[in-house]
Amino acid sequence: MPFVFSFDHEHPRHPMELKDLLGGKGANLAEMSSVLKLPVPPGFTISTEACRAHMEAGWPNGLSEEIADQVAALESGTGKTLGNPTDPLLVSVRSGSKFSMPGMMDTVLDLGLNDVSVQGLAEATGNDRFAYDSYRRFIQMYGKIVAGVDGDAFDSIFEEVKAAHGVSSDADMPAEVLLEVINEYKALIDREMGRPFPQDPAEQLRTSIEAVFRSWDSPRAAAYRHREHIADDLGTAVNVQVMVYGNRDDNSGTGVGFTRNPATGEAGSYGDFLVNAQGEDVVAGIRKTLPLTEMGKLFPGPYRELLDIFDRLEDHYRDMLDTEFTVEQGKLWMLQTRVGKRTGVAALRIAVALARDPKIALTPEEAVQRVSPGHLDQILHPQFVATDKVVLTTGLAASPGAAVGRVYFTADEAVEAFERSEKVILVRTETSPEDVHGLEVAEGVLTSRGGLVSHAAVVARGWGKPAIVGADDVEISAASFSVGDTTVHEGDVISIDGTLGEVTLGELEVSEGDTPEEFDVVLGWADEVRGTKLGVRANADNGPDAARARAYGAEGIGLARTEHMFLGERLPIVRRMILADTEEKEQEALDGLLEQQRGDFEEILEAMDGLPVTIRLLDPPLHEFLPDMEELVADEALGILDPQATELYHAARAWQEENPMLGTRGVRLGIVKGGLYKMQARAVAQAAKARQAAGGNPIAEIMVPLIVTEAELILVRAWIEEELDSVLGADRSGLDITIGSMIETPRAAIRGDDIAEVADFFSFGTNDLTQMTFGFSRDDVEGRMMPRYLTEGLLPRNPFETLDHRGVGELVRMGVERGRSVDPDLKIGVCGEHGGDPESIIFFYDVGVDYVSCSPFRIPIARLAAAHAVLAGKG
Amino acid sequence: MPFVFSFDHEHPRHPMELKDLLGGKGANLAEMSSVLKLPVPPGFTISTEACRAHMEAGWPNGLSEEIADQVAALESGTGKTLGNPTDPLLVSVRSGSKFSMPGMMDTVLDLGLNDVSVQGLAEATGNDRFAYDSYRRFIQMYGKIVAGVDGDAFDSIFEEVKAAHGVSSDADMPAEVLLEVINEYKALIDREMGRPFPQDPAEQLRTSIEAVFRSWDSPRAAAYRHREHIADDLGTAVNVQVMVYGNRDDNSGTGVGFTRNPATGEAGSYGDFLVNAQGEDVVAGIRKTLPLTEMGKLFPGPYRELLDIFDRLEDHYRDMLDTEFTVEQGKLWMLQTRVGKRTGVAALRIAVALARDPKIALTPEEAVQRVSPGHLDQILHPQFVATDKVVLTTGLAASPGAAVGRVYFTADEAVEAFERSEKVILVRTETSPEDVHGLEVAEGVLTSRGGLVSHAAVVARGWGKPAIVGADDVEISAASFSVGDTTVHEGDVISIDGTLGEVTLGELEVSEGDTPEEFDVVLGWADEVRGTKLGVRANADNGPDAARARAYGAEGIGLARTEHMFLGERLPIVRRMILADTEEKEQEALDGLLEQQRGDFEEILEAMDGLPVTIRLLDPPLHEFLPDMEELVADEALGILDPQATELYHAARAWQEENPMLGTRGVRLGIVKGGLYKMQARAVAQAAKARQAAGGNPIAEIMVPLIVTEAELILVRAWIEEELDSVLGADRSGLDITIGSMIETPRAAIRGDDIAEVADFFSFGTNDLTQMTFGFSRDDVEGRMMPRYLTEGLLPRNPFETLDHRGVGELVRMGVERGRSVDPDLKIGVCGEHGGDPESIIFFYDVGVDYVSCSPFRIPIARLAAAHAVLAGKG
Repeated sequence: MPFVFSFDHEHPRHPMELKDLLGGKGANLAEMSSVLKLPVPPGFTISTEACRAHMEAGWPNGLSEEIADQVAALESGTGKTLGNPTDPLLVSVRSGSKFSMPGMMDTVLDLGLNDVSVQGLAEATGNDRFAYDSYRRFIQMYGKIVAGVDGDAFDSIFEEVKAAHGVSSDADMPAEVLLEVINEYKALIDREMGRPFPQDPAEQLRTSIEAVFRSWDSPRAAAYRHREHIADDLGTAVNVQVMVYGNRDDNSGTGVGFTRNPATGEAGSYGDFLVNAQGEDVVAGIRKTLPLTEMGKLFPGPYRELLDIFDRLEDHYRDMLDTEFTVEQGKLWMLQTRVGKRTGVAALRIAVALARDPKIALTPEEAVQRVSPGHLDQILHPQFVATDKVVLTTGLAASPGAAVGRVYFTADEAVEAFERSEKVILVRTETSPEDVHGLEVAEGVLTSRGGLVSHAAVVARGWGKPAIVGADDVEISAASFSVGDTTVHEGDVISIDGTLGEVTLGELEVSEGDTPEEFDVVLGWADEVRGTKLGVRANADNGPDAARARAYGAEGIGLARTEHMFLGERLPIVRRMILADTEEKEQEALDGLLEQQRGDFEEILEAMDGLPVTIRLLDPPLHEFLPDMEELVADEALGILDPQATELYHAARAWQEENPMLGTRGVRLGIVKGGLYKMQARAVAQAAKARQAAGGNPIAEIMVPLIVTEAELILVRAWIEEELDSVLGADRSGLDITIGSMIETPRAAIRGDDIAEVADFFSFGTNDLTQMTFGFSRDDVEGRMMPRYLTEGLLPRNPFETLDHRGVGELVRMGVERGRSVDPDLKIGVCGEHGGDPESIIFFYDVGVDYVSCSPFRIPIARLAAAHAVLAGKG
Repeated sequence: MPFVFSFDHEHPRHPMELKDLLGGKGANLAEMSSVLKLPVPPGFTISTEACRAHMEAGWPNGLSEEIADQVAALESGTGKTLGNPTDPLLVSVRSGSKFSMPGMMDTVLDLGLNDVSVQGLAEATGNDRFAYDSYRRFIQMYGKIVAGVDGDAFDSIFEEVKAAHGVSSDADMPAEVLLEVINEYKALIDREMGRPFPQDPAEQLRTSIEAVFRSWDSPRAAAYRHREHIADDLGTAVNVQVMVYGNRDDNSGTGVGFTRNPATGEAGSYGDFLVNAQGEDVVAGIRKTLPLTEMGKLFPGPYRELLDIFDRLEDHYRDMLDTEFTVEQGKLWMLQTRVGKRTGVAALRIAVALARDPKIALTPEEAVQRVSPGHLDQILHPQFVATDKVVLTTGLAASPGAAVGRVYFTADEAVEAFERSEKVILVRTETSPEDVHGLEVAEGVLTSRGGLVSHAAVVARGWGKPAIVGADDVEISAASFSVGDTTVHEGDVISIDGTLGEVTLGELEVSEGDTPEEFDVVLGWADEVRGTKLGVRANADNGPDAARARAYGAEGIGLARTEHMFLGERLPIVRRMILADTEEKEQEALDGLLEQQRGDFEEILEAMDGLPVTIRLLDPPLHEFLPDMEELVADEALGILDPQATELYHAARAWQEENPMLGTRGVRLGIVKGGLYKMQARAVAQAAKARQAAGGNPIAEIMVPLIVTEAELILVRAWIEEELDSVLGADRSGLDITIGSMIETPRAAIRGDDIAEVADFFSFGTNDLTQMTFGFSRDDVEGRMMPRYLTEGLLPRNPFETLDHRGVGELVRMGVERGRSVDPDLKIGVCGEHGGDPESIIFFYDVGVDYVSCSPFRIPIARLAAAHAVLAGKG
């Protein structure tokens, strides 16, 4: 197989199916050229196979010859030749890997220019200034990317020469001044590289291609792959394409266009356009762009052609596309296309619109797959509560959502602040790939320059972080920024609204936002796809939360924590129970709690009538219901403990623990304080009975936390059964109240078989399971250690957010397999926070979990992720 | 196969190989009868098979007929018949399961007596009093065991009648008074059972056999099995044997004899004897016994015969035996024999003596198996330091060792005190199987009655707990005991010396004792057996401990904890390191520590010259090197923190953790405070270099704690290698300093394959692994929860003492298998406390661990247990 393919090569399959080989950009260029026959400047793709061969053993045999053949074809097709002194062929060299890695790989433009051909370009275009500016740009890019010269050095030269000649705008720079810049650039390269800037176009091409190959392994590319979980051994393809010039004259221009609005999903073209400019100018956000619609006035013909191409692209790709194009002296050229990134709202609207479009007619399965959990996450992102906020300034609303944090001006400072557990808003003039680590830790980003497709905007949308870009009024200096008379210093708190583009001083209150009507449509399809293969329940501890969860589509409650019911005005009763020095007093306190608990459970069972409600018996250690030990110690030292506080002090001392997470909690506490679990079981039984009497259909499941051995469950189960029998009678009034086990200690997972002998169901508590499997106390390691572990790559990701498949996941798999080895129909759920994490949901479905349970606000995401898991079809 | 076998049945194999079928007692009786032809009263054994059949489906078909046949054979052999009014046949019915369960199962004597046959017995023996006393005893035993009547009720009647007639001693009770007792006993049974005491001997026999079957499932038998890890489904055999009477007259007697001294191992018979008594009187400790040697004076013929039998038994069994015998009117009868329980010292001496005895000539393998780890444990048991102690009283030294604790007088109170974390000395007049739960939790036991084979003595020796029995001077009342004028109240502290039999008020200082010369002989054999199959190393943190461990036979150090080196006079330097606010200050403190650490490591490497020394890098969280937070809080509240203390307060606050065990410790701390591990690696390298320069052969292994992922080890390993290279040069001066990983988090065990890619060796830290697998913080659960879990059977044993095979053990097995899947020669050790636990050692050998490491004092036990593991031959 050849290493190199021309864009119009007739592949045996659609090029889009050959992204492994051609990279995303190459495949799209080939799709446009060879299939859609769109006006694409000719060129060729050097395959990822060549890059991989180069990684292994250097420049591959035969590659040079293939490239020479392709160049010859371009020369004969265009009638131009590389390095020609009258009308030279110029090309761009661009990377293009299988997965989109925006801005991460390097690009060289105007390759083929040298001291001779630049004059040919000047002659052919009749535009000295244009030719020399192109040469100047080429030397600069080549110097930076191929020779590794610091880009600032070129900028300094440029600014110095500009200043020396009193030129204010780049566009006003005469050719002779540009020539001076060129000479200084060449001298710089000579100094830095130790040899002159190469005049031979073939050498320029080969070294540029090699530089693209090498850039695959650059630290910033590697960091991006790490962040996005892209394999390191894929390699990149390289696209060599005949140059067209949006910066040739004022009858030229360049733009970035979406077939629909990527922020809102609205139909109609959308994008940025610049007259007399190259594509990089649009993306870099250095010049203020025009909306794409303005292009229609300036270039009516090409604009109409572009809109027609947009339609053809959408029909062909059956999706919303992102394109780059150039108009050269009135002729439209398509430089690139790819499926466009979009906001959550846009994803929903586009999915529904394309499903309803008779020509495209996405199936429900396809539509569901067009929306990612991250998209829903954006929609469910917090929004500011609209109070009497005073907006400091506005910019472009580049990525929706609300973020509050302290202002930092460099990526490094942002990371340092994050490691101090601060929330960070990264404020930059503009961002570049060098800022990625800062963006990663930031709550949101604010830039003073750039458009909706600037680096900051693209990255923030991709990661679902609020972003405001192009906020012109913001003037940034070293450690502060100012808007008019107001100065905001490093470390000050601001609030940014990425939906409205508004910047506000101080911290704004945050609430959940509204969802578009397409939300329910897509989730309905997701539920259709999911069927009963993977249930979604909510973690909810009271009636209102349960009702909210049900509204979000929860199919029951997977975790009702009873500890929250012990706080507030009930705390005094709980404390009376703890302090009781006789069985009578303890029982009296328990009786008081019984009344309350029954009410709690009734409310929840009512809200979830007809759906299962898993009630976890009390889990936390008792000292959580007592005053803080340090306060008591201080008061005791000062001698200001009153008799009641003294009693509490002694109780707190008695229940104090070195490592409360691993102490007397869960079933251990239940066994030590036997009356507690009996009371809770009784309350469940009474609540179910009352609901039944009221005509309801209560389905209660009692769950025992922190089991390590079946013997614990045998003991506690007997107590519970006794209470159920006592309240409901031996026939249980027809109510089937099941009794199950949390699986949240490694031992419980390992001994899933023994425990399944006694449990009616399992529910994996993956938070605790993760804590114990790693030996990580979340309270202690997430602040101090985790950021360091994540940034240094010691952990691929935070295991409290996404289940650690290779460690904790093995225990989950073992628990499921061993439990089912005893009871093939054992019902198994997950109620840790991972139950709302899409990647973890795919894992859970894969190992055979029946349902996941998560916080009410995560329910829609879990429903969608569950549908994706079912479509991935591993279960 | 029949259910019933006569004692002289000719089995196809030696009866001792048929303990599964005949039970221990039945097998021994058959061995004595059918093989050794000793004078055993005739009888038969109802097999365990019959008991199991009975457990499943009630009284087995055909069993009654088999029993009737055997009874007929007894009747024809003895010329007596059951229930005969002139010379009746009387039998005993005794349980006998496969494993010795002393005192746990029930016994009925004198069966066959009724209102008619009692007169026959009186006539045949010419002794009314004897006959009626036998009948009285039979009714009482039958009533208690078969009818379930409370024994106290019989005692009350007996005492009342005795008092009413002014009789002081049992032996002085005339027949007519006994008849009154008998009538009241029968009335009692009638009342309690609702039907009269059965007069039909066949019914007596069948109901007694059934009672023995049932008693297998009695709570106390079940509890004993649980404690001793005996399966519940074995069942018991029942032995029916013709009665002989040690209480027939003064030419009769009964005794318990050992073929050697079970306390010291000295040669020569040893035991207790009572004239005119039944066997139960000797064991129960109600009457003061005579030493066995006294029997020679009273019964010279039977005594000589007994000594001859002892010799034959030892030659046949090739071990020390424990026997029960009776002399009836001058004729010796052997009632029972079994391999005798013995103290640790006795075990060693007997093993060596029997190995050197040319007739018995135990092989080293056999001799090693005759000594249990528990035996060595007893020898290595603490002894009191002999100071100016004032002995309160003395008793029989029944089980060696020293124990200190608070006095409690009932088993229940002992358990309650134990649950309050008190150390307990159980003080009882005598103990019975009902006291087992109290003995279990006690440090030691003191009884005022009973001999060396009394219940208390046997149980305490079996469990290696110090015991003093038969301390006549001790007078026990409800909640105190007195010795002369001294009164000791419940809760007072006493010290008991089970080796000397001395009771002392208050707490005596304890130290390690001397070992007999046979100790080294047996351990030498153990080492021969063990070879290189399972190494034994020590956990030692300094030169003297290392030297001591080497003297105990350690083959290296498996765990040198470096944290102990950071305390004492070095604490100020450590604190300077923690408080350092500049890198320079931190480095200065680390440099100070470097000097000290190098010295530490040199000492240890010197003590273990030529043997491997595993040095663990710093493990505990930093706050352990700072003052106690609560003290600081109190001082802060009082405003008495000086500037230095204030600084420490802030540091303590900064490093404070919710769950320090799962916080920033181990490699996490190493990564957060990078200079620390580099300093320690440098110190190891410098120490090894210095030892090499001094002509030594240092073998250092550096171990990184708390690894969860290979990425941590890659990072830290690179640091360590850099320091090693820097100190030793690229060739490492020919020193092979390996770098390994603790496996102490569940995740590390699960990902043993990944970690083995980076580690030179594994060392399982089973303490932490147990804590995390169970979610047990040892500090928190061992006091409050563990006793309850153990007594309620929620855990079969304390998993911090014996490795939890089914939970933690699975992770160990997984870690070994996965590590070796990557590196088949991976060296794997265990350095948790389980490394010194015999049962755990067998498990570790089984899963393929190369060596165990334990505290220096456990080394001999580990060497022996390792030999046993090798002989068990699973590895």
